[in-house]
Amino acid sequence: MGLGKRPRLGLIGFGGFGRLMAGALCPHMDILVCDPAYVGAVLDTGQALPMGTLEDAAQCDIVVLCIPVARVPHLCARLAPLLKPGTLVVDVGSVKVEPMRVMDELLPSHVDIVGTHPLFGPQSARDGIAGHKIAVCPLRGVRWRSVAGFLRRIGLDVIVTTPEAHDREAAMVQGLTHLIAKVLAGMGPLPERMTTASFEHLRAAIGMVQDDPPTVLHAIETANPYAADIRSAFFERAERLRVQFDGV
Amino acid sequence: MGLGKRPRLGLIGFGGFGRLMAGALCPHMDILVCDPAYVGAVLDTGQALPMGTLEDAAQCDIVVLCIPVARVPHLCARLAPLLKPGTLVVDVGSVKVEPMRVMDELLPSHVDIVGTHPLFGPQSARDGIAGHKIAVCPLRGVRWRSVAGFLRRIGLDVIVTTPEAHDREAAMVQGLTHLIAKVLAGMGPLPERMTTASFEHLRAAIGMVQDDPPTVLHAIETANPYAADIRSAFFERAERLRVQFDGV
Repeated sequence: MGLGKRPRLGLIGFGGFGRLMAGALCPHMDILVCDPAYVGAVLDTGQALPMGTLEDAAQCDIVVLCIPVARVPHLCARLAPLLKPGTLVVDVGSVKVEPMRVMDELLPSHVDIVGTHPLFGPQSARDGIAGHKIAVCPLRGVRWRSVAGFLRRIGLDVIVTTPEAHDREAAMVQGLTHLIAKVLAGMGPLPERMTTASFEHLRAAIGMVQDDPPTVLHAIETANPYAADIRSAFFERAERLRVQFDGV
Repeated sequence: MGLGKRPRLGLIGFGGFGRLMAGALCPHMDILVCDPAYVGAVLDTGQALPMGTLEDAAQCDIVVLCIPVARVPHLCARLAPLLKPGTLVVDVGSVKVEPMRVMDELLPSHVDIVGTHPLFGPQSARDGIAGHKIAVCPLRGVRWRSVAGFLRRIGLDVIVTTPEAHDREAAMVQGLTHLIAKVLAGMGPLPERMTTASFEHLRAAIGMVQDDPPTVLHAIETANPYAADIRSAFFERAERLRVQFDGV
């Protein structure tokens, strides 16, 4: 990240996305994984990463929160007294307004904070993260510039934005995708034979999000302040269409 | 189509799909276009095709009905007395059960009938029809075999099926795609910046069908006997999800 020596990165959370991120970052940084749910932190390549406690992770140059949005307040409360001055704290959640407000409130003033939202996941970035998008929201300090620069160097399309602008757009992008995926998921196996190109796109869209943990849908739909309006508009238009065809 | 000389094809209907088809078939057949809505039948390449009356079109070796599903009964009634023995009548509608029943009932016993449904359109086949799918439903005569063979030779993926099996699968494939496109179309401009790969797929799916004439959605949703059930399942699951998130 433009530092002289290889930075040490404390990765808190080794779920599907944490693993994807660790794989992408380990050529560039020394990663220490903290996740009590795992005994060993093994990448898809077979490479094992060192693990440590929350205290260990908090001592790294960069601390990345790779946990469900709903757990951000609890983790920040635990993390706050452990962080040393000058640490850069980064989150990767699908929602930005409220989690970043919480980080700002709970984390000590002597750390810098950058919010990010990688607009990809283990499914869509199966063949690598290059070319995918990531939103970067500056919050505290100027190091969001070197974060953005680093992310561009590893091939990502960086969108610098505010938490509000992010959540407004993400409410539609992710809210609608996950809503539709959820509706279709319960309709039984989708046809594979007599398909149109547009249906194949629809199936690909669903395939990319249907294995996301339920916490992702929950965060998108309940923690994004703009999601309820998008949802209402969707259901309202669906109902209008139902009446149009079925007349009742 | 395996005939000794170049067959003459009477194309009834020169809308978006008729034009696409004429472009794909004119290297192989002599096409005569019948469409009272057009003064000249000009392809996207600039090539002009000869035009004629319904009587002229009915005298061709092959007669293709390229009209909205709802107009099949009316056209068949007018066409029936004009067809000569041995003519092959082909339709291209998005729904097969009822239109093929009508063709069977109204067209004289001395003509052969094959139902087809090209699973592509002017948007999805913008770069050519090769590689796209087409459903072929044999109805009267054995010439569906040479139809299927010809369609394969021009690069299409031919699925031979029954009207019932077709409509059951298409109800989901087309019913869902058009329903979702219709719901989203009214939600204002879709985001283009902060997008995920799955949202891009969703947007591509919608883009391919949103310019279809309203008669297509109408045919898919009201003329396909299985569409109502798919629609109910979709709206029921949407409502269940609404209650889950909004609690009312």
